[in-house]
Amino acid sequence: MSKFFAIVAGVGAGTGRSVALKFSKTYPVVLLARRPESYEPVVDEINKAGGRAVGISADTADRKSVDSAFDRIKKELPDAKLAAAVFNVAAGMSRKGFLEQTPEDLEASLRGNALGLFNFAQSTIPLLLSSVADSPHPPTLIVTGATASLRGSARFGDFAAGKFAVRALSQSLAREFGPQGVHVAHAIVDGVIDIPRTKAYNVNGGGPDSKIDPDAIADSYWYLHTQPRSHFTLELDMRPFVEKF
Amino acid sequence: MSKFFAIVAGVGAGTGRSVALKFSKTYPVVLLARRPESYEPVVDEINKAGGRAVGISADTADRKSVDSAFDRIKKELPDAKLAAAVFNVAAGMSRKGFLEQTPEDLEASLRGNALGLFNFAQSTIPLLLSSVADSPHPPTLIVTGATASLRGSARFGDFAAGKFAVRALSQSLAREFGPQGVHVAHAIVDGVIDIPRTKAYNVNGGGPDSKIDPDAIADSYWYLHTQPRSHFTLELDMRPFVEKF
Amino acid sequence: MSKFFAIVAGVGAGTGRSVALKFSKTYPVVLLARRPESYEPVVDEINKAGGRAVGISADTADRKSVDSAFDRIKKELPDAKLAAAVFNVAAGMSRKGFLEQTPEDLEASLRGNALGLFNFAQSTIPLLLSSVADSPHPPTLIVTGATASLRGSARFGDFAAGKFAVRALSQSLAREFGPQGVHVAHAIVDGVIDIPRTKAYNVNGGGPDSKIDPDAIADSYWYLHTQPRSHFTLELDMRPFVEKF
Amino acid sequence: MSKFFAIVAGVGAGTGRSVALKFSKTYPVVLLARRPESYEPVVDEINKAGGRAVGISADTADRKSVDSAFDRIKKELPDAKLAAAVFNVAAGMSRKGFLEQTPEDLEASLRGNALGLFNFAQSTIPLLLSSVADSPHPPTLIVTGATASLRGSARFGDFAAGKFAVRALSQSLAREFGPQGVHVAHAIVDGVIDIPRTKAYNVNGGGPDSKIDPDAIADSYWYLHTQPRSHFTLELDMRPFVEKF
Repeated sequence: MSKFFAIVAGVGAGTGRSVALKFSKTYPVVLLARRPESYEPVVDEINKAGGRAVGISADTADRKSVDSAFDRIKKELPDAKLAAAVFNVAAGMSRKGFLEQTPEDLEASLRGNALGLFNFAQSTIPLLLSSVADSPHPPTLIVTGATASLRGSARFGDFAAGKFAVRALSQSLAREFGPQGVHVAHAIVDGVIDIPRTKAYNVNGGGPDSKIDPDAIADSYWYLHTQPRSHFTLELDMRPFVEKF
Repeated sequence: MSKFFAIVAGVGAGTGRSVALKFSKTYPVVLLARRPESYEPVVDEINKAGGRAVGISADTADRKSVDSAFDRIKKELPDAKLAAAVFNVAAGMSRKGFLEQTPEDLEASLRGNALGLFNFAQSTIPLLLSSVADSPHPPTLIVTGATASLRGSARFGDFAAGKFAVRALSQSLAREFGPQGVHVAHAIVDGVIDIPRTKAYNVNGGGPDSKIDPDAIADSYWYLHTQPRSHFTLELDMRPFVEKF
Repeated sequence: MSKFFAIVAGVGAGTGRSVALKFSKTYPVVLLARRPESYEPVVDEINKAGGRAVGISADTADRKSVDSAFDRIKKELPDAKLAAAVFNVAAGMSRKGFLEQTPEDLEASLRGNALGLFNFAQSTIPLLLSSVADSPHPPTLIVTGATASLRGSARFGDFAAGKFAVRALSQSLAREFGPQGVHVAHAIVDGVIDIPRTKAYNVNGGGPDSKIDPDAIADSYWYLHTQPRSHFTLELDMRPFVEKF
Repeated sequence: MSKFFAIVAGVGAGTGRSVALKFSKTYPVVLLARRPESYEPVVDEINKAGGRAVGISADTADRKSVDSAFDRIKKELPDAKLAAAVFNVAAGMSRKGFLEQTPEDLEASLRGNALGLFNFAQSTIPLLLSSVADSPHPPTLIVTGATASLRGSARFGDFAAGKFAVRALSQSLAREFGPQGVHVAHAIVDGVIDIPRTKAYNVNGGGPDSKIDPDAIADSYWYLHTQPRSHFTLELDMRPFVEKF
C-alpha cells in the first residue's frame, strides 16, 4: 500500500465520489462529509474494489470538527503522508432575491465555502509541505469552483460571495506555497454535473453529454495532481460542449 | 435643504471623509463609523461649513447595530429620501502568513467586508428603490474595492477573501437592481491613499502624487452618482500615475 | 483661445460627435474621419457655437494618411499643444460565421482597430509627453472599447480580435507612459449607442434610456481627462441600466 | 496506422517538437514550420522511433502557403482524417519601447499570431468538423498563448496585441464550434520554456524546474485532446512552481 494518501472533503454522489474513486486507484483515501450517509456508499465501493477508504464525519466550516477529523486520520493511517487534498464543498445557494436573503444565508455561504477551505487548508498544507521531498507527484491541493467563482449573477450574491472568496484564498495559497513545492489548483465547474440529483434537469437541450460527467472532473483532478512542478496549472474551466457561456 | 440625503459607511480621516464632504455640498449626509471619534471631526467640519451632517455609531457587520442606525436616521431626517449610499468599510487585513492566520482573522474579513456590505445594502437598497421615481440622479450604491478585490496575493488570503466576496455581491446587486433603476458601482482602489496614517509610507519612490488623493476618489464617486441611467458604470480602477501594476 | 487642443479620431454622428462637442467647450478640436461628410456637420456645429474645430480627412490605419494629417494640424494650430487625444475608431465587424469570414475581414479589423490606434498613438504620445509640464489636466489618450474587447463571442472573432488587440495596446501604453505623466484610458462601451443609425434597433425592450446616450460617454471621457495624476483610471465600463450582462 | 492524424503548426526545438512527439505516439503527425531546418530534425526523430511524420514548409500568416500545405497533406495522407490541430506559432515580439516600434513590428505580430491562427483554423476546422462522428476523441484545436495573452505590459504592446487577438479568436471559435463537437482550447504559457535557446536564461533564481518543461506542455495538450465532450476545458494556465505572478 502506498505510503501516501489522499483526502477528499465534500463527498456525496457526484464529483466527490468520482474523485475518491479515481485517487483510490493509487492512494488510500480519506473521505470527509458532514453525514455518514454521504460517504458510506463510496467507502464501501472503494473497499470492495480492493482499495482502502476511510470515511469520517466532519464539517469543514467547524474548526473543532476538522481538528478531530485529522486526529482520527493520524490514528487510522499513522505512517501515511498526504499526497493530495481535494476541497469539494459547496454551500449556501439560497436562490432567493437579495432582499429575501438573510444574513444567515450569506453566512452559510461564507462559512461553508471560505471558512471551510480555510480550515481544510490549515490542516492539509502542513502535511503537504512535509511530503514535498518524497511524494510521487508534487503534493496538491485542488479546490472545486463554479461559474459563481467568476460572476456574481442576479439573485446569486450569497453563493457568489462564498465562491469568489474561495477563489481569492486559492490564489493566495498558490502564490505562498507554490514556491515551496505545493501545487494549489482551482477548477471552474461551469455547467450542471451529471449526478443522480440532476437527472431530471433538462439543461442545454437535454441531449447526450449536455451535463458534465463527474468522472471527467476526476480525471482532470488526477491530471492536475500529476503535473510536474515545472508546470503547475492554477486554474482551468470545464463545461459541456453545448453549454452557453 | 435637499429632500434627498446621502449616507457613507466607514468614515475616518481618508476616503470616507472626502466622500462625505463632497456629497455634503448637495445633500445632508449621514456618517457611520464604529466609533464616534472617527466621524465626529468630519461631522463638525461639514456642519461648520454650512452643510448638514449626522454621525451615528454603527458596526455594519452587526445587523442589530445597522438596524438601530437606520431607525435613528428616520428620526433625524424623517422626510428625507436616500439618493446615494457609499460602503467604504475595509476590514481584516492580518498581513500574516497563511499558517499564522486564525479562523478569526478570516472571519473578521468576511464579516467586516462581505456581511457589512450585505447588511448595509439590505437597509439602503429598499430606500434607493423608493427614490428611483424622483431623485435628481439615479439612486446609487457605491462600494470601495481594492487591489485585493481582483488578486489573491501571497499572505493576503484573508483580506482578499473578504474583498472578492464584496465584489461578487456588488456585481449581483448591479444585475438585480440596475434594471430597477438603482446604480450599483464598485471602485478598485489600486494604490496607497494619501491620508494622515500613510504620510510616512514611502511608496512608488515617494514623489508628489505617488499616493491617491482621497478627494479625487470622492470626485469619482460623485461622478458615478451623477451618471444617467442610460450609462451606468459598474467598475472602474484608480491608481497613482507611478503605480506599478 | 486655449493654448491646448484636443483631437478626436473617428467622428461621425455618434460618440465622436458628442466627444468633440464636449471637448470643444474648453479646447480647439481637430476631427479626423476618413470622409469629409462624416466630420463636416460636426465642424460646422462647433464653429457656429463659437468653438474652434478643424476637420481633416484621414485613415488612421494608413500611416502616411496619419502623418499628413498631423502635418496639416501643425499648420492649422501652429502654437497649440495637445491636451487630449481620443481614438474612437471601430472597424471590421463582418457578422459572418467564422468559415464565411475572409482573411480580408480579419485584416480590416486588425488594421482598422489595432494598427489605427498604433498609428494614432505614435503621433499623439510625443505631443502629449511634451504637454505634461504645463497642460491644465494630465495629457490624456482615451480609447473606445466595446463588449468585444473582453469577450470573443461566436461569429464575432474578427471584430473581437481587433478590439482585444486595442485593449492590449492601451494597457501597454498606460504602463509605459503613465509614469511619464500621460494618462491612457480604455472605455468599454457595453451596449448599443443611441445614434441616428440605431434609432430603429429595438434593444433591451426598447424603453427610454435602453441605449447609451453618446453625450454621457462624452461626459465620461471629459471626466477621465480631468482626473489628476494621483488618480488615473485605466478602464471603466458603461452600459444602459437595462442591459443584460 | 491510425485513420486519424494530427497537425502541429510552429515546430522548432521547443513546445512544437514535444507536442509532435507526444501526438505521434497515437497519430501520424504533420509538422508545419516556415523553414525545413525547423521541422526536419523532429520529423527524423519521429520516423526513426517508428512513428509517421511529414514535414511541410508553410507560413501560416500567408494564405496561399497554408492552402498549398493542405493540398500537400491530402496527397501525403489521402485517407486520413484530422483528429487534432495545434497552433503553436508566436511572432512579433520586438521588445522595443512603443515609440521605437514600427508599424511593421505591430503587423508582424498581428499577422504572425492572429492571421496565422485564422488561416490555420479555416483550413482545420472543416476537417475537424468532418471527424466529429468517428474520431477517438472529440476533434481538437489547441492554441498556445502566453502571459501577453492576458496582460499588455510596458514595451510589449506589439506582441500583446497579437496574443490578445489570438485569445479573442480562440474564444469565438470555441463558442461557435464547441456545440458542433469540436473542442477549442487556449493554453496560457506563463513562464520561460526550457529549450536549447533559453538554456542560458537565469530566471526564477535558476534552480531546477524553474523553467517549463515542454514535454509537460505536450502532456497538457494531450490531456486537453482526450477530454470527453461533456467536459471541455477552454483555458488553462501553466507556470513553473517558482514563477512570480
